[in-house]
Amino acid sequence: MSPTEQSVLDAAYMARALELARKGVYSTHPNPRVGCVIVRDGEVVGEGWHVRAGEPHAEVHALRQAGDKAKGATAYVTLEPCSHHGRTPPCADALVNAGVARVVAAMQDPNPDVGGRGLLRLMSAGIAVQSGVLEGEARGLNKGFLKRMEHGLPYVRVKLAMSLDGRTAMASGESQWITGPEARSAVQRLRAQSSVVLTGADTVLADNARLTVRPDELGLNAELTALAVTRPPLRVLVDGRLRVPLDAPFFKAGSALVVTCAAASARERYHEEGHEMLALPSSGGHVDLRKLLVELASRGVNDVLVEAGPKLAGAFTRLGLVDEFQIFVAGKFMGSSARPLLDLPLAQMSEALELKIIEMRAVGNDWRVIAIPTPSASV
Amino acid sequence: MSPTEQSVLDAAYMARALELARKGVYSTHPNPRVGCVIVRDGEVVGEGWHVRAGEPHAEVHALRQAGDKAKGATAYVTLEPCSHHGRTPPCADALVNAGVARVVAAMQDPNPDVGGRGLLRLMSAGIAVQSGVLEGEARGLNKGFLKRMEHGLPYVRVKLAMSLDGRTAMASGESQWITGPEARSAVQRLRAQSSVVLTGADTVLADNARLTVRPDELGLNAELTALAVTRPPLRVLVDGRLRVPLDAPFFKAGSALVVTCAAASARERYHEEGHEMLALPSSGGHVDLRKLLVELASRGVNDVLVEAGPKLAGAFTRLGLVDEFQIFVAGKFMGSSARPLLDLPLAQMSEALELKIIEMRAVGNDWRVIAIPTPSASV
Repeated sequence: MSPTEQSVLDAAYMARALELARKGVYSTHPNPRVGCVIVRDGEVVGEGWHVRAGEPHAEVHALRQAGDKAKGATAYVTLEPCSHHGRTPPCADALVNAGVARVVAAMQDPNPDVGGRGLLRLMSAGIAVQSGVLEGEARGLNKGFLKRMEHGLPYVRVKLAMSLDGRTAMASGESQWITGPEARSAVQRLRAQSSVVLTGADTVLADNARLTVRPDELGLNAELTALAVTRPPLRVLVDGRLRVPLDAPFFKAGSALVVTCAAASARERYHEEGHEMLALPSSGGHVDLRKLLVELASRGVNDVLVEAGPKLAGAFTRLGLVDEFQIFVAGKFMGSSARPLLDLPLAQMSEALELKIIEMRAVGNDWRVIAIPTPSASV
Repeated sequence: MSPTEQSVLDAAYMARALELARKGVYSTHPNPRVGCVIVRDGEVVGEGWHVRAGEPHAEVHALRQAGDKAKGATAYVTLEPCSHHGRTPPCADALVNAGVARVVAAMQDPNPDVGGRGLLRLMSAGIAVQSGVLEGEARGLNKGFLKRMEHGLPYVRVKLAMSLDGRTAMASGESQWITGPEARSAVQRLRAQSSVVLTGADTVLADNARLTVRPDELGLNAELTALAVTRPPLRVLVDGRLRVPLDAPFFKAGSALVVTCAAASARERYHEEGHEMLALPSSGGHVDLRKLLVELASRGVNDVLVEAGPKLAGAFTRLGLVDEFQIFVAGKFMGSSARPLLDLPLAQMSEALELKIIEMRAVGNDWRVIAIPTPSASV
């Protein structure tokens, strides 16, 4: 086989490993999504993907399925095999013990403490090693995990719903459902993929929002729905002045984390109802959002979905803390008196937040726009 | 050949005829875009398309190319052949005289005075006739012509450029180029396809807008560019109080039609500079836009492109006179103090203008959204 042919096949098997990894999108956090394919003599002899933290890694599932056929085989993994003892034994050792001849990884481990060590362990055992096959795709699958490992912050997605003329509610506050059921289902999946769904007191008070994952609205098959509900996102409420009463639907819907810059003396009250209160220093009278994100990352939070009103979403935006906007656009004009998308007062064009629109796609009768701040603007 | 196979081939040849018709998109107005393909024994023996009013129709070009081979052939035309003597002799007669055996039309003539007569003329000469093949596509090619024939009004496209949060300029008026060169080139093509480009005094005064077609910005090949410049759109300025001075770049760029509800006594002044002034009754202090559109249609205007500020574009919108919005969206947030897309004050969600977004597509670094008001809202 020529080197070119080999690289075509490598990409094809890695694409399959990524497809497997993607099954974990609703359940692996705080761990990354990882898939593995084991191939011998042009035949797939083992497949696996990581399901949940504390359970076996992708390589272990694939090796179990391959059994003796792993000997002399090539293992394709979407992330460098681990070399350290965590809740499970190191996968690099498992691959060595199984007699695998070659390991192809999509990317190295982004954790600066262990990155490259797994590959070195394999190499030192005489295994041929390659990294960087479909790396872009592999990184796209674990944006939150990578952001946390590389920057100590979670990946922050801001979900917004607006009319085509950029409005979120009438001046009176009237908003109802701007978008349709398919868009709401897409939002449910976004929630289920996130480690944290974050909102503010305004939204919870105005809309009685609960921010829960509702299995019947996910639009997923039974297997994925079951996975999604076993790892629901932590609901985080930014409530600087503790305005939301404990009998609000938000609190009744399950335990939550309340973040405040009010007196920590209220902690006990929340604790009694099954919630946690986190008191953070204030920044200009408001919860310091950067500190909050650092704290969440330190707790293993990869992906944060912000579902908030123009004020809180605008604050994240102004502070350059947003990695991605997901904007659901309804086909209507709500007019020039209606409320803006974000509370973002800018005087000059040079202050405008530059974005790269990376996708516009129909979602039922609505459209979804995905846009990311361009580097110059996210400082 | 089975009826099914015949209808597959009919659609294929009609698709080619539509492709030919499309070449006239920059030049046929006030006439419709029409293409014709003549097929004998499974071979295309003639092709033609209508280039310009006053010049031969598509059928004549195709028959000339086919010569004797038209005898016994099938002619595919994107619009019912005419039966009346206009600036050219009737095409139905030409098809009869050429001995064509079968005529397939995409659609009947929408002109209520002549619709169906061409097909009847063919039938009475013993020619097999069929209509309705790819009718939707054929109608899409001549939206303006059809609107004028069927409703006595032109098809009104409103072009807008906005940031992703629905803003067109900063509060100060600062707007610069919101969108990039590819989007501007697309706007140039929209202008070139229109019979009229319409704007308001605010835009001309604020931006020194000229609203001309600039051949080097069209991004078309030499043939289409040449066609476009031979039939430039009429530039129409709505200037209720005649605020734009005659030495403005808009007037220096060529002859224009000025529409006002001010005293008609100014007419001579515009005439001397090569412009026409149209005095229309005012509607609440403003030019009656519906009357203006009726007047334009009576002059043979099929497609009107509105390139105006929030006030005038908002007025067309509020009056239900817009058939289509073409919104160029730049990847940026201009913020909540910036100017709205349209001057369209609405108090309640029930007043929101319902739209169907029919396309979102990347144009360079920007995106184009095409949306049409839904029937209930365009009353």
